[in-house]
Amino acid sequence: MPDSNIATASAVAEATVEAYLATWNETDATRRQAAIARAWDAAGRYRDPLMQSEGHAGIDAMLAAVQARFPGFVIRRTSKVDSHNDCVRFAWSLGPEAGPAAGASAQKSTPSTAAGPASVVGFIDRM
Amino acid sequence: MPDSNIATASAVAEATVEAYLATWNETDATRRQAAIARAWDAAGRYRDPLMQSEGHAGIDAMLAAVQARFPGFVIRRTSKVDSHNDCVRFAWSLGPEAGPAAGASAQKSTPSTAAGPASVVGFIDRM
Repeated sequence: MPDSNIATASAVAEATVEAYLATWNETDATRRQAAIARAWDAAGRYRDPLMQSEGHAGIDAMLAAVQARFPGFVIRRTSKVDSHNDCVRFAWSLGPEAGPAAGASAQKSTPSTAAGPASVVGFIDRM
Repeated sequence: MPDSNIATASAVAEATVEAYLATWNETDATRRQAAIARAWDAAGRYRDPLMQSEGHAGIDAMLAAVQARFPGFVIRRTSKVDSHNDCVRFAWSLGPEAGPAAGASAQKSTPSTAAGPASVVGFIDRM
């Protein structure tokens, strides 16, 4: 692949991840649902050791529950976005907006398409 | 899930990964092909930044090429097997059998089924 195509693929992967992370941090229900529609494939499926969801409505309900349980927490990306062949991985933390992240650090592997990821798998390093 | 089911799921995940790793280290063609048939789903697909393969014959050709290029190298698991929802991740290294691993360290995320993984995605931390 020419260098310019690699650069483009990396930029697409990073934008995909940023759009995904934005859905976790959007607490306004209407804006969150719009963000999910932009960020995810319609048949998107999320799985980690604690939660699963499927489809835009299912993902929205999951994120609303997380936000209700951990008010003020934000998700942050804590690594570069590593991508190849429509797959990405990155580390993240979940914690209070101010102060050190008290939450999980983990990696997500996200087979992604132009329409947004069809599958996100989260792993948790610590809680 | 009761603790006993979690223990069983973890043991299945670890056995799945060990069977997968054994295919990389089996240099006898006949035994390697048999190991692939045991370890992988028939439609299994492998992707990392350097290589892709699909189906038992394609996976076998890929592993034969790796073994020819790096004679004497072995793949080793360098982390626990972390698993949930039929997905696993683990870190590995590829290097000479004797002496320190000179090869890559990375993580693979492997959606797995009873029939062996249908998809393995490898990421490379360093080369």
